[in-house]
Amino acid sequence: MPAGCVVLLSGGLDSATTAAVAKRDGFRLHALTVVYGQRHAVEVRAAERVAASLGVAEHRVIHLDLSAFGGSALTDAIEVPKDRDEEAMAAEIPVTYVPARNTVFLSLALAYAEARGLRDIFIGANAVDYSGYPDCRPEFIAQFERLANVATKAGVEGERFRIHAPLIHLPKTEIVRLGLSLGVDYGLTHSCYDPDAEGRPCRRCDSCRIRIAAFRELGMEDPALADG
Amino acid sequence: MPAGCVVLLSGGLDSATTAAVAKRDGFRLHALTVVYGQRHAVEVRAAERVAASLGVAEHRVIHLDLSAFGGSALTDAIEVPKDRDEEAMAAEIPVTYVPARNTVFLSLALAYAEARGLRDIFIGANAVDYSGYPDCRPEFIAQFERLANVATKAGVEGERFRIHAPLIHLPKTEIVRLGLSLGVDYGLTHSCYDPDAEGRPCRRCDSCRIRIAAFRELGMEDPALADG
Repeated sequence: MPAGCVVLLSGGLDSATTAAVAKRDGFRLHALTVVYGQRHAVEVRAAERVAASLGVAEHRVIHLDLSAFGGSALTDAIEVPKDRDEEAMAAEIPVTYVPARNTVFLSLALAYAEARGLRDIFIGANAVDYSGYPDCRPEFIAQFERLANVATKAGVEGERFRIHAPLIHLPKTEIVRLGLSLGVDYGLTHSCYDPDAEGRPCRRCDSCRIRIAAFRELGMEDPALADG
Repeated sequence: MPAGCVVLLSGGLDSATTAAVAKRDGFRLHALTVVYGQRHAVEVRAAERVAASLGVAEHRVIHLDLSAFGGSALTDAIEVPKDRDEEAMAAEIPVTYVPARNTVFLSLALAYAEARGLRDIFIGANAVDYSGYPDCRPEFIAQFERLANVATKAGVEGERFRIHAPLIHLPKTEIVRLGLSLGVDYGLTHSCYDPDAEGRPCRRCDSCRIRIAAFRELGMEDPALADG
């Protein structure tokens, strides 16, 4: 039986690509979706579609109401910025930053991995497009890996947890190119911060704009924008 | 206005004492209770009583179903060990270990702290009675503090998070002595791993036995055992 891994699967473009990379590398996939009180439960449906398309061994959805804490446009009623150019996106830590989000996500993935006897965790963190998010940087990933090996029974007993962030240095266009080469169906994914009532992407938030531009660079239309 | 802190409050003896220490040190208390699919919702009621008795500024209860992952007697149907002596308790990592529990708890506390602009987090981790739990050791606390300062906007911007574990080196008797000196009402707390249907402690699990012995050493009966 191939080794198993936990992969954090939001239903977005990056996590779908990350899961496909883990599969390519021979891992059996245990997908974990964390519903964190974000506005768009549409992401969970996307995660379920992506999990099914990748033939995961198991998919767990865990509910966690981070909106109880507030502090982000993704959990609160703060306006999601629209129509920003690259310079504006890069200028500061955006209001869509969710405090300690990837720390919480990786902690849950670690709990899941240890409960299942797994040692590899995949996360779609990306330091290029989200340069403003502190918990998308390589030093964060490295620090979390160190923590995992101090925090757990397996770590203390001498086994090693590995946190894989295979997209961390890739520009979005390269992520899409990689995913397409691995057969990812991006029509199943959802990345928009502010979808309409039917779950259709707004095309104007940072997340939509970045992925639309990436597909355009490859001479394609974003398949998530096709009317379906 | 005094500086605020987040304190993880389970409703047990250690976290109640920790909250009292934070209050003594001049902090305004933001209490965080994580309900993690453990068997005993009675802990939440205890946390609410303790929070009220300490006059906290805010108390958040966050629900998180760690039993979705399994792997612990505190979240699954595994039998809680009873009537073990000190030697048996110390011999191995107990089945009551919840994978990555304190990593998850501190991550949530970090999210809460950053959302509120707070920099101090208190946790009742104890390395003496729970020597078998990897995430109750000083090196875990130190490693998490390093992570917090890499993982967050505040950390990146040069502010320092501090993780306080004031009980980490104290034997249980000294914890109780400290709490009594600070006016903690231990009759409000609940520590049992396996309470009966009315929420009364079993008196036989490791957690019950350790606290009963501590009060006895101080010439007292555990006030949580008084019929009420």
